[in-house]
Amino acid sequence: LIILDINEIIQSLQMDMTKMQTLKGFRDFLPETMVVRNEVIGKLRQIFEKYGFDEIQTPTLEYQEVLLGKYGEEADKLIYLFEDQGQRNVGMRYDLTIPLARFIANYPDLPKPFRRFQLQPVWRSDKPQKGRYREIYQCDVDIVGSPSPLSDAEILAIINDSLKTLEFPSFRIRVNSRQVLFSSMENAKVEKNMWLSAIQTIDKLDKKEKEEVEKELSEKGLANEQIKDIFTSLINAKPDQYLAQVIEIAEKLGAGDSLKFDSTLARGLDYYTGPIFESVVDKPKIGSITGGGRYDHLLKALGGPDLPAVGTTIGLDRAADVIEELHLWKNLNRTTTSVLVTVFNNNLFGESALVAANLRENGINTELYPDEKADLRKQFKYADKKGVEWLVVIGPDEVEKNMVVLKNLKTGEQDEIKLEKLIPALNSKT
Amino acid sequence: LIILDINEIIQSLQMDMTKMQTLKGFRDFLPETMVVRNEVIGKLRQIFEKYGFDEIQTPTLEYQEVLLGKYGEEADKLIYLFEDQGQRNVGMRYDLTIPLARFIANYPDLPKPFRRFQLQPVWRSDKPQKGRYREIYQCDVDIVGSPSPLSDAEILAIINDSLKTLEFPSFRIRVNSRQVLFSSMENAKVEKNMWLSAIQTIDKLDKKEKEEVEKELSEKGLANEQIKDIFTSLINAKPDQYLAQVIEIAEKLGAGDSLKFDSTLARGLDYYTGPIFESVVDKPKIGSITGGGRYDHLLKALGGPDLPAVGTTIGLDRAADVIEELHLWKNLNRTTTSVLVTVFNNNLFGESALVAANLRENGINTELYPDEKADLRKQFKYADKKGVEWLVVIGPDEVEKNMVVLKNLKTGEQDEIKLEKLIPALNSKT
Repeated sequence: LIILDINEIIQSLQMDMTKMQTLKGFRDFLPETMVVRNEVIGKLRQIFEKYGFDEIQTPTLEYQEVLLGKYGEEADKLIYLFEDQGQRNVGMRYDLTIPLARFIANYPDLPKPFRRFQLQPVWRSDKPQKGRYREIYQCDVDIVGSPSPLSDAEILAIINDSLKTLEFPSFRIRVNSRQVLFSSMENAKVEKNMWLSAIQTIDKLDKKEKEEVEKELSEKGLANEQIKDIFTSLINAKPDQYLAQVIEIAEKLGAGDSLKFDSTLARGLDYYTGPIFESVVDKPKIGSITGGGRYDHLLKALGGPDLPAVGTTIGLDRAADVIEELHLWKNLNRTTTSVLVTVFNNNLFGESALVAANLRENGINTELYPDEKADLRKQFKYADKKGVEWLVVIGPDEVEKNMVVLKNLKTGEQDEIKLEKLIPALNSKT
Repeated sequence: LIILDINEIIQSLQMDMTKMQTLKGFRDFLPETMVVRNEVIGKLRQIFEKYGFDEIQTPTLEYQEVLLGKYGEEADKLIYLFEDQGQRNVGMRYDLTIPLARFIANYPDLPKPFRRFQLQPVWRSDKPQKGRYREIYQCDVDIVGSPSPLSDAEILAIINDSLKTLEFPSFRIRVNSRQVLFSSMENAKVEKNMWLSAIQTIDKLDKKEKEEVEKELSEKGLANEQIKDIFTSLINAKPDQYLAQVIEIAEKLGAGDSLKFDSTLARGLDYYTGPIFESVVDKPKIGSITGGGRYDHLLKALGGPDLPAVGTTIGLDRAADVIEELHLWKNLNRTTTSVLVTVFNNNLFGESALVAANLRENGINTELYPDEKADLRKQFKYADKKGVEWLVVIGPDEVEKNMVVLKNLKTGEQDEIKLEKLIPALNSKT
């Protein structure tokens, strides 16, 4: 008789479960998720390079002095900080703008204007919720050292090209500038120390009713007359001279159809100094997917040199998650593997190995089933579970006739074909 | 009169320098370094996919329970550990094998055998020295759940293909197995508890003289007769049955010419259970660049399920660093940008923008100089510094004649050509 303490068993099971879990707010990327993410990253990298941008990468860890006190106390609380083995106070990268400032300061010889993109994770100990994680893959594109509207326009062209290439059927790039917003404040005689606060409220117009926004402005101490004047001013607003130039050049660069001047766009952050832009995807309803603008004083404020800059963040995680969850890319398989070459038995695996090697030499992504003892049914099920489209079977009959069986697991179609016809057949069908 | 305290000035400058430094043992990747690294990663990813492997990624942070106590106390000291904002004890990924064990445990439904590759940084607070950093990009390829020699052979084929594709002119893959080494110990009647220690000494034969190795074995307590017997046994050793099968299949998969059976290869780590392999690049002299083998009990020991596995690590950092430092890839430019379209003046930047947009539409990586006020000489110097090969100049004369000037910055050659000939000209020359 063995007496088992059920609590002890449960406890030991729970222990094991915890041990093997991912941390809250973090996630693993499984093969089918990686297929989508690699495709998104590959397409974006190709676009950035097409526009003449150079990629850089910076270290995960930076001195705390570099990271802290740059975006306020709330942001500082989200940074993962610790003391390393050499008693250095370090922290994990929180965004890609602070590293850019440090990078520019570190390499004064970089040719300027400096056009860089950076595709790396950042870490924020934020409250995790659906679609929000603590390890976020960011994608930033910026031009440093150019005060010209040409640079703002280049960024708009990249955003347009990116969203087209990611195949979102319906999107627009909202553009505005801080000058337009400031003018409306000036016209309504709002006190200068209230401008940023009032603008933050106006920024909510795309999510809230006009009445609610008016109420919030009123609560912030603005007179009804002032509120009315602000709205009149915004309705009649036109792009300022600089923004008008940006839009004109962006049209020449092919982004014209997507641009929409929106005098109520403010963006949350206070550090923009000129044009601001945000892109909104309507179909599927996923909201804004890029945000950026001109920030001529930020790099200096972050401890870098005093250089003008303009750029955007592209929400790589959000785009990839939506594309995957809604299966927007119909033709993308769950795996990059196209063909599984099965292994019939111990005597014939050499034949299978030769066929697999030949397919690979011809650039066809091919898995050779790695167990000569598994029966064919098991191998079929395996291919199906993995999402591999094609199966090649080489049994004793086929070897004798110098043929193979080619089966499509999506359609169920199956053909016996000459070995030398295998590669042309696959090439014509994939 | 203003009195400046020079010490204070120096101190404040030094403060600034520290603030903006990268941490010891960490590094930024500048554009020309990224060009090489992206090329290496792109080539390797393509090979892994060609062999039917799926990519996964795991989080940077894991519970300390997952990370600690797996490779001994010395390794534990190198792991970056801290307590996060939720009082969880966490640490940064130390290698890609522990995450693999956790991953396999977390997703029991994954089709097996599971063929995964993973290309992510790991962090080790190791003593930094030339070529050794604290943030290391690793690249692991493994097959989990297959006890078959076919799997070992697939890994060998991948290593062969990888080193060929990275264009190392002279390399070999040393193969051996633990069984061969154990037999030599048995033949020489070495006590079993001394086997691993003796094997670690024998592993040094590729770096040290035979006499030195003999001396070390003697110091470890082996009799002269035993040492003699070990060497006789190793000289006469042949691959055991399993390894012979692996080699036979690897030959069918195209890796035959690179394999070299070497009975003295032991590899440092104790967790290999069957074949072990290491690849050595002779030209340039950079030593071993891959290491791996079969590790049938390791995943369980790391807290994962009891599954056999075989795989290799490819030294991505070392390969990329050497390729860059020695300029091994002659045809690779310092930037991915092919063309700089210059801007003549404020009136003509629209023409330049249209040409740039057209080049990009045709897949040519093109930078539009982002400042309409810079003189041409400055733009030429900029292109040269960045390493851009082609310059396009569109001045008033050219606009009138519907022509452009195309200049090659490498050769100095310069032509005035019709605008519609620009793309064919660049396509034929790049």
